[in-house]
Amino acid sequence: MRRNIFIVLSYDGTRYNGWQKQGNTDNTIQGKLEGVLSRLAGAPVEVHGSGRTDAGVHAKGQCANFHIDVPLSAEEIRVYLNTYLPDDIYVKAAREVPARFHARLNAAAKTYCYTVRTGCAYDVFARRYCYYMETPLDVAAMRRAAQPLLGEHDFMSFCGQKRMKKSTVRRIDTLEIEETRLAGAGGTTGQIITIRARGNGFLFHMVRLIVGTLLEVGAGSRDCGSMPAVLAARNREAAGSLAAAQGLALEEVIY
Amino acid sequence: MRRNIFIVLSYDGTRYNGWQKQGNTDNTIQGKLEGVLSRLAGAPVEVHGSGRTDAGVHAKGQCANFHIDVPLSAEEIRVYLNTYLPDDIYVKAAREVPARFHARLNAAAKTYCYTVRTGCAYDVFARRYCYYMETPLDVAAMRRAAQPLLGEHDFMSFCGQKRMKKSTVRRIDTLEIEETRLAGAGGTTGQIITIRARGNGFLFHMVRLIVGTLLEVGAGSRDCGSMPAVLAARNREAAGSLAAAQGLALEEVIY
Repeated sequence: MRRNIFIVLSYDGTRYNGWQKQGNTDNTIQGKLEGVLSRLAGAPVEVHGSGRTDAGVHAKGQCANFHIDVPLSAEEIRVYLNTYLPDDIYVKAAREVPARFHARLNAAAKTYCYTVRTGCAYDVFARRYCYYMETPLDVAAMRRAAQPLLGEHDFMSFCGQKRMKKSTVRRIDTLEIEETRLAGAGGTTGQIITIRARGNGFLFHMVRLIVGTLLEVGAGSRDCGSMPAVLAARNREAAGSLAAAQGLALEEVIY
Repeated sequence: MRRNIFIVLSYDGTRYNGWQKQGNTDNTIQGKLEGVLSRLAGAPVEVHGSGRTDAGVHAKGQCANFHIDVPLSAEEIRVYLNTYLPDDIYVKAAREVPARFHARLNAAAKTYCYTVRTGCAYDVFARRYCYYMETPLDVAAMRRAAQPLLGEHDFMSFCGQKRMKKSTVRRIDTLEIEETRLAGAGGTTGQIITIRARGNGFLFHMVRLIVGTLLEVGAGSRDCGSMPAVLAARNREAAGSLAAAQGLALEEVIY
């Protein structure tokens, strides 16, 4: 009997071309999942993600669903996937859901987390999962700059897709910036900064463009009161540069 | 003026052939450090580590010293090193020490930490820095088994070097096994287990052989009361198998 299986997975995005399958030269998370599931089912299986993640972006709680007809329980499918998937993709949970459930269409909200380390907070073991800057950032200024982004806005200025025909209105519920200060040898200092955004949906490159703009505020090269003007411009050129992919992780999808 | 510089460094050992330089085909931590320092000094610089770490073993607080004649402060040398070293080696601290100080000969004790994850504690972001086992381990049995190793003993059974001419007597001060239990989806369970050993010195492969033996106890394939007999045998064959390098990190060197 054909069932609809919902999965929660984590991946180290370092060596992948992102979530979405890309034809023949495939090195994507979706492609890896579909490869293993199609072999299991003996027929093509299509996997629906909650949304795409860019090349190099990680996930701690990406969600997806697929329809499959195999004589295995959801937990057995999970074990099968983990047996044949590469070691940088891991399915944390699997369960059967109603036939109409769709991981993207039913997603109510998502949380992304961007990690920056500065100064002596450099860590060889975390280096693939954060963005590193030599100079400390002004976190108070970043928090002030972030405030106007809360709520529903037209985020066209933070959209990396040039000709976006659909609505660029999205709602950001929370945008929290946490800082852990570290003291290193010889009077050096460092920070571990996490920028966590929860919203009802994010445009292409939206989180990384928001973070890139906030990093310019933190570094002092952009005024902390400039965000309303950036939003009003409805122009990608008004925002800051695109923050590096490796600092970003999709943390959670809320249904 | 020729000065003696002491450094504390961390490294992700994944892609290295260990600490110790190996002639021409060099891909070692010591080799990388000496390469950068020799270029800085315009003359060969020899780096003395507190001890070797095996291929694939990590370090959070390896220590070393070297004599160098350059018009830079210790902190400036640290910054120079971090600028030219690969991103998986990081010098956390540097200071000038008396000319006679030697990182290996003056080391009083060392702490190594071995990390094991079991069951649902698999983590794509930690996978390079731990050893993973599907089945949970009996940590209480491992703790009981570890007790007889405390204190001064002849650890010849835990020495990976076949023809060891020097003394194989070492002192283990503490051998602590900590466990964090995790609950995963679908009733699955997992553990993050750290085995932390502090002692006055460790023989070649000694920590990994002790860990390998304790893992066999934890998995139920070796009696938790067998350790005194293993020690008494003074024979490598009496100990368990060699635990994987990637789970081990040199945490601290005490002077």
